[in-house]
Amino acid sequence: MANFELISSIARQTSSKIVFLVVDGLGGLRHDEIGMTELEAASTPNLDRLARTGTTGLTIPVEHGVTPGSGPGHLALFGYDPFEHQIGRGILEALGLEMPVGANSIAGRGNYCLLDHDGKIIDRRAGRLSTEQNLKLTEILSKIEVDGAKITIKAGKEHRVAIVFDPIEDSKFSDKINDSDPQKTNVPPNKVKAATKNAAQTASVIQGFLEKAGEVLKGSPEANGIILRGFSSKPKIPQMKKIYKLNPVCIASYPMYRGLSQMLGMKIIPTGDTINDQLVTLKDNWDNHDFFFVHYKPTDAAGEDGNFTEKVSALENLDKEIPTILGLDPDVLVIAGDHSTPSVLAGHSWHPVPFVIRSSTSESGQTEKFTEREARKGALGTIQATDLMALALAHSGKLDKFGA
Amino acid sequence: MANFELISSIARQTSSKIVFLVVDGLGGLRHDEIGMTELEAASTPNLDRLARTGTTGLTIPVEHGVTPGSGPGHLALFGYDPFEHQIGRGILEALGLEMPVGANSIAGRGNYCLLDHDGKIIDRRAGRLSTEQNLKLTEILSKIEVDGAKITIKAGKEHRVAIVFDPIEDSKFSDKINDSDPQKTNVPPNKVKAATKNAAQTASVIQGFLEKAGEVLKGSPEANGIILRGFSSKPKIPQMKKIYKLNPVCIASYPMYRGLSQMLGMKIIPTGDTINDQLVTLKDNWDNHDFFFVHYKPTDAAGEDGNFTEKVSALENLDKEIPTILGLDPDVLVIAGDHSTPSVLAGHSWHPVPFVIRSSTSESGQTEKFTEREARKGALGTIQATDLMALALAHSGKLDKFGA
Repeated sequence: MANFELISSIARQTSSKIVFLVVDGLGGLRHDEIGMTELEAASTPNLDRLARTGTTGLTIPVEHGVTPGSGPGHLALFGYDPFEHQIGRGILEALGLEMPVGANSIAGRGNYCLLDHDGKIIDRRAGRLSTEQNLKLTEILSKIEVDGAKITIKAGKEHRVAIVFDPIEDSKFSDKINDSDPQKTNVPPNKVKAATKNAAQTASVIQGFLEKAGEVLKGSPEANGIILRGFSSKPKIPQMKKIYKLNPVCIASYPMYRGLSQMLGMKIIPTGDTINDQLVTLKDNWDNHDFFFVHYKPTDAAGEDGNFTEKVSALENLDKEIPTILGLDPDVLVIAGDHSTPSVLAGHSWHPVPFVIRSSTSESGQTEKFTEREARKGALGTIQATDLMALALAHSGKLDKFGA
Repeated sequence: MANFELISSIARQTSSKIVFLVVDGLGGLRHDEIGMTELEAASTPNLDRLARTGTTGLTIPVEHGVTPGSGPGHLALFGYDPFEHQIGRGILEALGLEMPVGANSIAGRGNYCLLDHDGKIIDRRAGRLSTEQNLKLTEILSKIEVDGAKITIKAGKEHRVAIVFDPIEDSKFSDKINDSDPQKTNVPPNKVKAATKNAAQTASVIQGFLEKAGEVLKGSPEANGIILRGFSSKPKIPQMKKIYKLNPVCIASYPMYRGLSQMLGMKIIPTGDTINDQLVTLKDNWDNHDFFFVHYKPTDAAGEDGNFTEKVSALENLDKEIPTILGLDPDVLVIAGDHSTPSVLAGHSWHPVPFVIRSSTSESGQTEKFTEREARKGALGTIQATDLMALALAHSGKLDKFGA
């Protein structure tokens, strides 16, 4: 596990440039009929060339057997111990919907649900309500006012909402409160209560909101209740600028990754929806920064959909863009994944993820192609994802010698 | 990371013998024109034979991406966490010049420098003063006396000196003081001040010395000032005898490695300048010890000089001596490096370093030659350097079973 104190003590600012390309859900598993993983099936001549000459290996995202969500997966890649630095679900959901989250905010994620006459939950997702109906209900709920708090609520997809509570004036909120969502049916929603003295006001504000929401939604046939969970506040996270002496930027199409990057102190640069847009943004900002996090989502999306062919295409499309990145002549190019998303599992997994580091100080191994099996034969074997950041800094000449 | 408490609880004294050969700066990188690393280019039939039958792998000296100095690199090989056990620069410099350093000593490293009329630094190294001039000035400075301290000063190469301050009588010194060397020009040297109450006397002694030195050097045209940095005291380090139940010796030609070994409780045996001399010393002392640290420097020196051919020769010269070591029939022979010193970088680097363990309990891998790439295919893959010592003990039958 990378040692922040050590790395921070030897990090120095230099003009060298690092492109850190995160291929979301990069790793895969063998498809029984095809007999290959997505990376093995894909035609990726550019990635393969990098793999033959660069420093390759596999990363363990969190630890063996642990499947990370997107938050921990990315935190680890940027060198943060994902167990020590946990980001609450409510915060991640709010960031994903581009809601402003302040130092004093408490965010929660919620579902519209269906209740019976006794107030017991019949369906926790209200039959996966349509997003249109969600938007209508959320419009109504956003008019609710509760003393002592500013409340912001935003519709997600289907039955999902995120909600942010900000204290008014000098008071402080706390996330030491329980979920109102009991995570099961045939019971009523929980009352939100404070687990500590400091959380009393927060619990009363949120319970107050829920009671008003209950009254407003009462008549609504498609969803007559709302349940909240994952209350959390923004964690205090060491800033990349301070630890690594970097001037880092995030070039990501999805809001959640931008929100997460902002928490680490990256500058967020607006960009478009495609990798092509992102690489134009990369080029436009080349002179002003030394660390460029570029996030590629289609691989994870296809994996989550259980679509092997689509994930293969996503990898091939990415491969075509590699020459554009190399054209900028970065001192270091890291290509890594936050976790595996094997399409045969249609979800994230714990399996180690291939990576390649391309620099003038790369040591090549026996890797012939950019795949899970070949990466194992790389110069570094299997490492912790949290070690990748120090390697990127070392390869770019941004770490001084430790000790005499 | 090796667990001292665990290893210490199962270590036992036996008559088996371990030769621990540290090849300084062993690892290298591929030379672009030659297309090989130094180890790949060298003809090393004896090392290759060991690599085919022994336990091979690569060590990470400190952690991924971290380039160690000689101190941390060696501490790790002997099983000490190099982050936890840090040895100050002043202490290492003094040890390197064979100056006696006691439990209460404060050591600093220094430069002769050039000051302008206002006392501002023009050149921190006084134009890399000749060693002869250095010796003359140091002779003069060694006559300075300051109340409360015994002062020992010794010339290094060119502009470098080391200086050791020992308290007189019962008083204690502290290294919680700042450098007088500001590490930049066009400013005067810093006054040495105490950062804590306990350091007040130390600061006043050293500042007193510096003021007298300033007066003495005033007229000297080639170097009219001296600046000191890296003040440190001898760290308290667990002794190898106690942790490992060993009776260890150091056979090294360079003073710094002898000094470091002495701090770990090794006995220092005088030896000559060549590996041949060292192996004669090894043979002469074979019956009296069970752990022999033999240090081989030419590989690092050639790497630091950026001399690929010279490093290849240094490896080939070492290879010729391997039969002499095997002739003593050690129970365990470990060949490892404290860090890589690729001649293409002309300096230390973070890249993992090959090792081989030869014993009757070695498990062979798929390694065909003693090189970086082949070592990766060894039985142990990539491990922490701090794990090597426990492996050496295990292979020599010096570790009991842990638990029932």
